[in-house]
Amino acid sequence: MIFGIRPVQEMLASGQEIERVLVQKELENPLVADIVRACRERHIPVGRVPEEKLNRITRKQHQGVVGFITAVQYASLDNVISSAFNDGRNPFVLMLDRVTDVRNFGAIVRTAECAGIDAIIIPDRGAARLSGDAFKTSAGALGHLPICREHNLVSTARYLRNHGLQIVGCTEKSSRTIYEVDFDQPMLIIVGSEEDGIAPELLELCDRRAKIPLQGKISSLNVSVAAALILYESVRQRLPEVV
Amino acid sequence: MIFGIRPVQEMLASGQEIERVLVQKELENPLVADIVRACRERHIPVGRVPEEKLNRITRKQHQGVVGFITAVQYASLDNVISSAFNDGRNPFVLMLDRVTDVRNFGAIVRTAECAGIDAIIIPDRGAARLSGDAFKTSAGALGHLPICREHNLVSTARYLRNHGLQIVGCTEKSSRTIYEVDFDQPMLIIVGSEEDGIAPELLELCDRRAKIPLQGKISSLNVSVAAALILYESVRQRLPEVV
Repeated sequence: MIFGIRPVQEMLASGQEIERVLVQKELENPLVADIVRACRERHIPVGRVPEEKLNRITRKQHQGVVGFITAVQYASLDNVISSAFNDGRNPFVLMLDRVTDVRNFGAIVRTAECAGIDAIIIPDRGAARLSGDAFKTSAGALGHLPICREHNLVSTARYLRNHGLQIVGCTEKSSRTIYEVDFDQPMLIIVGSEEDGIAPELLELCDRRAKIPLQGKISSLNVSVAAALILYESVRQRLPEVV
Repeated sequence: MIFGIRPVQEMLASGQEIERVLVQKELENPLVADIVRACRERHIPVGRVPEEKLNRITRKQHQGVVGFITAVQYASLDNVISSAFNDGRNPFVLMLDRVTDVRNFGAIVRTAECAGIDAIIIPDRGAARLSGDAFKTSAGALGHLPICREHNLVSTARYLRNHGLQIVGCTEKSSRTIYEVDFDQPMLIIVGSEEDGIAPELLELCDRRAKIPLQGKISSLNVSVAAALILYESVRQRLPEVV
């Protein structure tokens, strides 16, 4: 954490990775306006909170401004995709559309790392915090797997499609199962929020929609289990030889 | 919860499903000895605890004895197996060898119910408590899926093998993957504890050992994810037709 107007300004100027900035409610002055503008330009979320909340976060002189440095270094999606293509591999990335539960996020990162995927894409708003709990649930995988934070998931999905990636959405709204998808190609897999699945604008962009077959009476799998099943179906299909 | 010597005696006599019984440390009298003996006969765990612990559990007159009724009705493994065979289906059961984390247990129950398996077998000691948290994490599946509590997992596995079930252990100590196992037969799948996997005596009984391939740098999947992957590989293999 970084406290105070000058330190936060310097943090922003340094180009350092920043998770979010909290500004005291009703605090308006040119320096604060500068900070808010710089955050907007870099798509860093700014929260307006009561002074008491900032006082609970730190006992130091915060001057109404607190910045949070990210625990992980976000990766560039460009680099992830081009390095996969350069290595002669099919890029394979997972997009999490508003998966907000920290434990589910950590669990997905852990499984994704074991499945050998290239990166996870999260939105800059409405994603789980990359907190200590996320790190712990990921069993340290959050330190190994590239995480790309993108401003607009729809534009990002379009961008990846233009680079030759097939887009598969994991949704119940499909008659096909994940076992009918050919994963042995450049691939973007989208998994949606715990509450209402994948956003309609993203679902429209999917080349394929695929469901996980449910054989019981209850209606849904946990999102981290759903992600695990689709990621490992791709692992299975790409294993060198299965007798 | 049931408090007091007489009520606990009646509970035991009624044949009702009992999770465990707590008895006050150093409390010895013929009535208590009767209760302890009845518990042993029915393989109900008895814990000896200080009086203060019982006082924290209830403010009522407990007379040094508290019994916990199970939230779920345990199922008879005999019934589960014979009803599957009678329906012309291959019985398909999952055994959890010392999976103690309540959330992992709940998550496994949820996935197992979605995968349409017949029952989950747990030991009467060293299993996760069937608590409210387990119920919640299972998304209610704990109310639908038969749970069989068995005294000795090794005897239980032998018994199931004698009834024609193939035993598959999910373990890293194998060169085969779960994708090389034929699941379309009567089947017992064993998943081991978070710390040290499947107990050696159980591992020896396995007809097949199978691992989940790991492609990353970290060394293991969460046990609830591992269980989900092996259960759904069996779902995949038994789907009526995959194009």
